[in-house]
Amino acid sequence: MRLGRVEVDGPDGPVARLVLVEPDRERLIDLALAERERLRRQGASDAAARRIAAALFPPSMAAAIGAGPLFTEAAARAAEVAAEVAVLPLDRARWLAPLDPPRMRDCMAFEGHIRASYAVLGASVPPQLYELPIYYKGNPGTLIGHEAEVPWPAYSRYMDYELELGFVVGASGRSLTPHEAKGALFGVTIFNDFSARDAQGREMGGGLGPAKGKDFATGLGPWIVTADELDLDHLRMAARINGEEWSRGSIDQIMWSVDELLAYASASEPLEPGELIASGTVPGGCGLELGRRLQPGDVIELEVSGVGVLRNRLGPPEPLRWSPSPRTPAP
Amino acid sequence: MRLGRVEVDGPDGPVARLVLVEPDRERLIDLALAERERLRRQGASDAAARRIAAALFPPSMAAAIGAGPLFTEAAARAAEVAAEVAVLPLDRARWLAPLDPPRMRDCMAFEGHIRASYAVLGASVPPQLYELPIYYKGNPGTLIGHEAEVPWPAYSRYMDYELELGFVVGASGRSLTPHEAKGALFGVTIFNDFSARDAQGREMGGGLGPAKGKDFATGLGPWIVTADELDLDHLRMAARINGEEWSRGSIDQIMWSVDELLAYASASEPLEPGELIASGTVPGGCGLELGRRLQPGDVIELEVSGVGVLRNRLGPPEPLRWSPSPRTPAP
Repeated sequence: MRLGRVEVDGPDGPVARLVLVEPDRERLIDLALAERERLRRQGASDAAARRIAAALFPPSMAAAIGAGPLFTEAAARAAEVAAEVAVLPLDRARWLAPLDPPRMRDCMAFEGHIRASYAVLGASVPPQLYELPIYYKGNPGTLIGHEAEVPWPAYSRYMDYELELGFVVGASGRSLTPHEAKGALFGVTIFNDFSARDAQGREMGGGLGPAKGKDFATGLGPWIVTADELDLDHLRMAARINGEEWSRGSIDQIMWSVDELLAYASASEPLEPGELIASGTVPGGCGLELGRRLQPGDVIELEVSGVGVLRNRLGPPEPLRWSPSPRTPAP
Repeated sequence: MRLGRVEVDGPDGPVARLVLVEPDRERLIDLALAERERLRRQGASDAAARRIAAALFPPSMAAAIGAGPLFTEAAARAAEVAAEVAVLPLDRARWLAPLDPPRMRDCMAFEGHIRASYAVLGASVPPQLYELPIYYKGNPGTLIGHEAEVPWPAYSRYMDYELELGFVVGASGRSLTPHEAKGALFGVTIFNDFSARDAQGREMGGGLGPAKGKDFATGLGPWIVTADELDLDHLRMAARINGEEWSRGSIDQIMWSVDELLAYASASEPLEPGELIASGTVPGGCGLELGRRLQPGDVIELEVSGVGVLRNRLGPPEPLRWSPSPRTPAP
């Protein structure tokens, strides 16, 4: 099942709607609308049908995933019974990021990327990257969907993409073992960890991890494919810039299993439905490794087999309005 | 004005309520309850009074702050007109973290702490810490309130506290200058950045910043004091462990102004009402600098003049259920 979020106009302005995506039929199904119709046919009053449909299919994908198996069961049932009243054409969709996660973490699970990146930077690989599935925490507030323009942050001259998988958490738990984390994966989406390399390099020298180098935007989408429809061991990945292939990789190069990533994420803190945990960049999956940089107006397409294509265009550099002036260390 | 969140029992279990705190009168005022009564006296129907009061004073403090000046104006009016129907005794409060921020960032704005910490670790201070008000991103999902027990994460043997100020954002903006950020501070609370030093040291060697070393719990509270009631240039701070003073400091040692911290946080990404930006540790404000460690059962009190005292007790170490086994680098 392919599940996404689109924006539609309402009386108070644009609102988010959960949709079931049928790319082969070039259509989307508005799930709340279909469920409302299904409930009505079952004898529910209009008010009750609206209320229950809105509770099952709220604007938040993370909230919907929180219902557990009920969510996808209800989506399948609604689409089966009443799709025809809730169809939107695929080519007219205004995509939002398919997920609005409460938290977002991005690992470094591909050894080839680690080695190549540190080689480019002329530094040796920290041994900790082999000891733990380390991650940084991203900004869920700046996730952007398919076809959205990527803002070019004012403080950067060096923009890059990163070809990654986004793992969507479907269950809750705390201090899970990898065995217990089996079945906690709701689905997979495509994750473009856009990076302002100059800002990232400077701030990471301070030791607290990336922030301004990443938090201006992250591409996500075009939709989530549920785990039951994917061969998780054989996802092939590619990146194209303006139609030219720059990167090609596969999940089979990953150092940690998805179960291990989810288990580690849950160690002594709660893991929640709707959280997003990204794989880190596949080897060769960014311009840094290739000695190439993005330019304003570039179109970046990330493709994952069985999932789809996530496409974004880079906007023009924003004007710089202020930057901090350095402090003088006390004598 | 002192604003907090407490838990009360409802028919479906505990719910969060926004309260106005009057420590001198040893009481809290349940704001939704007071506003409902005020609206009724004005002629609103019971249903309308409930609905409007719930919209002004929802369970989320961040959502309430999003209303802008209306929030504190409505709180003052409700308490003035109808406090007596909505009083809770202060000593019976079940405190929640006063804020449920959409994001949480923690800076390193005190030079004395930076120098002392790096000296303890035998490392030189990265120059970037003088160039930018660098921060790491915390976990808003594990904020705990006044009097809550601090979980001791399974993977750590070395627990510490950090004496910090929590700055609560009251306005929205993007790429603000420090001048524009003036007035964007909603209020101040006390922030205890509990730290698992051994885990933090290990993972920070990997370059992506702290995660497991911090994300198990952060103390916040006991309430938020609005900016108009504080002398921001002269907040005095202290930490006591089991009643013994370990730390003492003041905001006047800070390297970046609050306006600069908020402006930097907003650079090329949206700043939102209800976000939390912490100061970083005041010089001498943690056990690491003092060569001391916390023990299970220790009671940690952080005090800030004009704000109050945030008290938490450390729980027993959790049992370790799993830890990742190191990978072997490819030849």
